[in-house]
Order: sequence, then C-alpha cells, then structure tokens
Amino acid sequence: MEKSEGIERAAERCATGKTRLYVTADLAAGVPVQLGRDQAHYLLNVLRLKEGAPILAFNGRDGEWLCTLSEVRKKAASLLPERMTRAQEGLPDIWLLFAPVKKARLDYMVQKAAEMGAGVIQPVMTRFTNVARVKEERIEANLIEAAEQCGLLTVPEFREPQSLEKLLDGWSGQTPARRILFCDESAPPGSALAQLEGERGKGPFALLIGPEGGFAPEERERLLARDDTCALSLGPRIMRADTAAVAALAAVQLVLGDWRGDDG
Amino acid sequence: MEKSEGIERAAERCATGKTRLYVTADLAAGVPVQLGRDQAHYLLNVLRLKEGAPILAFNGRDGEWLCTLSEVRKKAASLLPERMTRAQEGLPDIWLLFAPVKKARLDYMVQKAAEMGAGVIQPVMTRFTNVARVKEERIEANLIEAAEQCGLLTVPEFREPQSLEKLLDGWSGQTPARRILFCDESAPPGSALAQLEGERGKGPFALLIGPEGGFAPEERERLLARDDTCALSLGPRIMRADTAAVAALAAVQLVLGDWRGDDG
Repeated sequence: MEKSEGIERAAERCATGKTRLYVTADLAAGVPVQLGRDQAHYLLNVLRLKEGAPILAFNGRDGEWLCTLSEVRKKAASLLPERMTRAQEGLPDIWLLFAPVKKARLDYMVQKAAEMGAGVIQPVMTRFTNVARVKEERIEANLIEAAEQCGLLTVPEFREPQSLEKLLDGWSGQTPARRILFCDESAPPGSALAQLEGERGKGPFALLIGPEGGFAPEERERLLARDDTCALSLGPRIMRADTAAVAALAAVQLVLGDWRGDDG
Repeated sequence: MEKSEGIERAAERCATGKTRLYVTADLAAGVPVQLGRDQAHYLLNVLRLKEGAPILAFNGRDGEWLCTLSEVRKKAASLLPERMTRAQEGLPDIWLLFAPVKKARLDYMVQKAAEMGAGVIQPVMTRFTNVARVKEERIEANLIEAAEQCGLLTVPEFREPQSLEKLLDGWSGQTPARRILFCDESAPPGSALAQLEGERGKGPFALLIGPEGGFAPEERERLLARDDTCALSLGPRIMRADTAAVAALAAVQLVLGDWRGDDG
C-alpha cells in the first residue's frame, strides 16, 4: 500500500477514533488473533503502530472488541482482544442489486452501499449493462474497507453476478419472500414518497438499480408484471447509477429502514 | 484531455442520447455560437464529431437547444442552434453547504450535488474541517460537467468558501429567509422522516453537511440555539461526508423537494 494512501486511511479512521480491522478469526478475551501479512504490514509499516496500540476488531459474529497490538515482530503481529465494546448486530435486511458500472464508479457504489446499510450486494446483468465482468476480489476488498471505516459490525455479503432473467426466474422461490423496489422512468413522477410509504410492513426489500441506459422494454414489462415489485420515480433529473444507489438507499432507509425509530 | 477520458465521457453521454454542452453565449435559432478552443478540441479531436453532428446546448438562460456542429476548421468550430428542445427552468432552490473534503471525494461531492438538484453549492469551514483551501476552478469545472451529463438546464451556482461563523453571522439578513437543515449526532435518532415532514412549507432550505470529525460543541450549540435550524439524524451508521451529502439531499428532495408531485 502506498504511504500516502495509508496516511489518508489513517486520517479517515480518526473520524471513528481508533483503527478498526475486520478479521476472520474468533474474538474472545485473552485469545490472540494472528494477523495476516498484509494487515500486519498495514498496521506496523503504514500506520506505524507500536506494541500495545489500541485497535478495534470485528468478525461479523462476535461483536466489536477492543484489542491491543501484540507480539510485534518485523513483519508479523497479533491482536490481543481485551473486552467487547459492542455486541454483535446484523446488518439491515436490505439488498442492493445493481447493474455493474465501470471500475471507479463501481468502487464508490460498493463502498457507499455498505455505508448506507445494505446487507447484501449483488451485481445484476441487464440488456443494457455495459460492463461484462466485475472483479469480485476488488469488490470484496472495498466492502471490507467500508465496513472497517464506517463502524459496521459485519461486512456486507457479496453475491456472484447473475442475469436479471435468472434472478427473476428464481426470485419467488426464496424465503423470506422479498419485494423488489426498482428505479424506473415508468414510475409515476413525484410519487416516490407515497410509493415507499405504501410499502410499509411489506418487507424485506431488495433495491434494484438498473444500468445507465435504463431497463429494456421486455425487462420493464417483466418487472411490472410481477406482484412483488414496485417502480420508484426518483425525481426529474438523470442520476448516474452510483448516485442513484446512494439516493435510493437513503429514501428506503428513511421511510422503511433504520433511519426510523420504533414509532416509524 | 486524455483520449481514454474522452471516450469514457462520450460513453457516459450515451445515457442521455446526444452530446450536451454548456455555453455562455446566447442561444437563438440560426445564430452561430463560436466554441472556445477547449470545447472545439473536445468535440473535434476527442469525440471526433463531424460537420452537422447534433449537439444539445444550454446556457442557464435560454433553455436547451438542438444545434449542429458548424464551420468546422482544424481547431475551431461553431454550434448552429436550430430549435429549442426544452424551455428554461430554474434549479431547485436547495443549497448545499458543506465542510470541504479532500480532492477526490470533493469532486464526487460536487458532481453528485448537481445530480441531486442543489441550486447553490458552498464550502463552509468549520473547526474540524481538515482542508484549508478548495480549488474553485476545479469545482466549477466539475459542476459544468455534471450539469452537461445529467441533463440540467443550468449550472449550479458555486459560492466562495466562508467560515461557519461568518455564514451564521450574516444568515438572518438574507431574503428569502432560509432554514438550515444540518446533519448531526445531537438529533434524536430515528426521527429524520418526522423532522423533514415537520419542515413542510417552511422552505426554502439549505442543507449543511459538517466535517468528518463532526461539529465542535460551540458550533452545535450555536446552530441549535437558532430558530431557523433543524438537526437531522441520518441513521445509525457513520457516513463519509460525500455519502452524507447525497443521502441527505435525497431525503430532502423526497420529502420537501421535487421528488414529490403537486400533491406532495
């Protein structure tokens, strides 16, 4: 990792206080977690942390733990969990399905989906999708980094790309049943808030962001013909797909998700 | 401009159909508009457009015009306006005030503010703002590009950076009076939708996005003490400032802005 990138990441971590790290090992008091080589390098050489430095760790199962950097060697170190700082919670049960876009915007889209609380992220290929393949490793790395920086207790789940056709073929078979909210010009303009309010109690949801060229007519027809979908109109302007993902997730979280309190 | 960047911009324009260009000159049928050297280079050498190519132009005053590329020389060309395709409309009267962030995120923040319909964009320096200066030319270039790509009829107005202190000193003196919606941890969690609904009819609004470190206690106190502000709680997760800008604008547009129809 470049030094400047590490410093920027370190500065970014200041917003959340301590360095946060996603690990795969179990977290329990007094049981050291051996760090992988890349993570050790990052903490020791990029962040320049020393023995005893406080680090928050999470693994998606055991909550968040305050740990100290331990057993520091030249290229290796451990985390020693001391106490749990936050109990494990799941991510919101909102899925983000999206027609993939090109690299830089894809990075942004994935990171921001994590910040906005999407629990599952899945690329969906549509007729007008202009990206043939996605680099799954890169997406997963982006999800981990976003989860670390934004205080998540779990890394959102990444699902392998699927065509819209196959996705819809199998959609009714899943449990629990899940409604698809999809952004589309066919939706009545100016109706987004009313549509979302009408979805209260009908969750869980998946949000489907189409490609920049929009859905093909047969795709739109197929979506509209189902009884488990709802077309949303997100305003009169054209949004880039990565903007639409954040904006749509915000609207959903505001009306249907965890931006609401118990009375919501 | 790099060739690959131009091709990507050309591909991005496909989503909106034709090439769209912001010009400063008046637009009237049959009155040629001489292109600046950079724009001529972009159209002729990067997009490789030929004489007669259709181009949409707007200037923030005369609406959007379908033009043809004319008087093509080696390094110069004109646009010949043929007919108006869209009548002039103003941008939504929502201001985005934001503590500036570092370059790459700032670019995104500005572009997305335009996509989300902010009419005025202004950097605001707070105590924990960790960026001393912004490159105004770069911001303005980003606003123009976003306006071109997203079908806006006007380029959002960029205002010079100001300290939060000075901004608030002069805030009550403006006409029309404008309420400040600011994202802050002090707001009651789970109340965003109710807070926004409570603001109906009280506009116009300015949305204030604080720095990644949050507002300083005295800044928060000053904002909360005013009778023209409202603190919003945007969910339980930490959002990066550029994410928060899009998410907050989405929430505002959904409940108070032009994502609503007349009945809204």
